[in-house]
Amino acid sequence: MAGKKPWHTIATTRLWRSRWYNLRQDNVRIHTGAEVTYTFQEHPGAVFIVPVTVERRIALLRQYRYPVDEWLWEIPAGAVDGAESLEAAARRELAEEIGGTAKEMRYVDHFFAASSVSNLRIHVFLATGVQLRPDGSHREATELIETSEFGILETLTMARAGQIKDGQSALALLLCEPLLRDAL
Amino acid sequence: MAGKKPWHTIATTRLWRSRWYNLRQDNVRIHTGAEVTYTFQEHPGAVFIVPVTVERRIALLRQYRYPVDEWLWEIPAGAVDGAESLEAAARRELAEEIGGTAKEMRYVDHFFAASSVSNLRIHVFLATGVQLRPDGSHREATELIETSEFGILETLTMARAGQIKDGQSALALLLCEPLLRDAL
Repeated sequence: MAGKKPWHTIATTRLWRSRWYNLRQDNVRIHTGAEVTYTFQEHPGAVFIVPVTVERRIALLRQYRYPVDEWLWEIPAGAVDGAESLEAAARRELAEEIGGTAKEMRYVDHFFAASSVSNLRIHVFLATGVQLRPDGSHREATELIETSEFGILETLTMARAGQIKDGQSALALLLCEPLLRDAL
Repeated sequence: MAGKKPWHTIATTRLWRSRWYNLRQDNVRIHTGAEVTYTFQEHPGAVFIVPVTVERRIALLRQYRYPVDEWLWEIPAGAVDGAESLEAAARRELAEEIGGTAKEMRYVDHFFAASSVSNLRIHVFLATGVQLRPDGSHREATELIETSEFGILETLTMARAGQIKDGQSALALLLCEPLLRDAL
C-alpha cells in the first residue's frame, strides 16, 4: 500500500502570498476516487546550520519570537532563495545571522517541518572551522538577537533536555550528534 | 536585554480561518518604537504521543502526506480541542489514530514548531502500558495510514539516523529517550 503518489493534483490556487511562503489550496483526487480540497503552506525550503567554531564551540542565537512571546535558543537558519544552491543559502545565513564564515559546510540530512500543513523541507548543515567576526552580521532592524557560544557536549545536553525550545534547531543539533562527537 | 514582552500588540485581524489554524496579522509596536505588521499562524496547540505498548514496543504510523507527496513515519498526534485538557487530547488522539488505550499518560515536555511563523506549541506525552485494539482506530476516510511496532532502541536509532522524516515526531521521540531507556 505504501507506494508513491496515491493522490493526484487536479487544480492549484494560492489563497495568500508572502515573502516567506504561500497558502496553497489544491483540488485533489484521493485514493478513494473522491475529490477533496487540501490547503497547505508552500515554502521554498529552509537551511538550518549547526556552527562549530575554530575553538570547537557551538554558536547559538537567543532570539525574541513574537508569535510565542518568548526568547528562544536557536541555530542560524533561514529560507532558501530560489536562485541559490542549498550550500550557498547556508553560507549566506551563517554570515547574515552570526557574522560567520565556515571552512567546511557539510550537508547532513533533511526533515519535514510539519508535513500535514506544509511542504517545508528543513535542510541541516554542519559548518566547521567557523570564524565569527564581531558585528559582522547583517540583521534586520526588526530582529532582537543575541549570540552565545557553548561547548559541544553542553549544547547536545541542552537539546536533549528540552532547553532549546525551537524544535527545528533542537532536532538539527541532534541529527548532527554523531558528527559533532567525531569533532570533539 | 533578554526580558519579556519587548514587543506590544496594537491590533489583531485574521486573514484566513480554518478548522486547524488561523492566519493572524497583528500591528505591533517593536522595541525600536516602530510599528510593524507581523503575520503568523494561530494554533490551539498539538499533542504528540510516544506510545509504548505492554510488550514494550513503540507503535509508529506510516502516513501519506500530500504536501510533501511522501509516506512518513510518525507518532500519533493531533490538535488540541479547545475544551479538553492536554492529557484528554493525548488519550483521544491515541485512541483515534492507533486504537490505543494507555495505562499511564505522562507529560514530558513542550517545544515550538516554527516560532517565527506560528505560535504552535507541541506538547510531548509518553504513553505506557498501551494496549492496541485491531481496527479500534477512528480514522477519517481521507487518511492513508498503516501502523507498525518497533523495539524501543530500534525506534530511537531510526529517529537519530534521520529515518523519521516527520521532524516533530523525531524530536518528540528523542526528548523521551531518558524515560524510554528507563522503561527497557
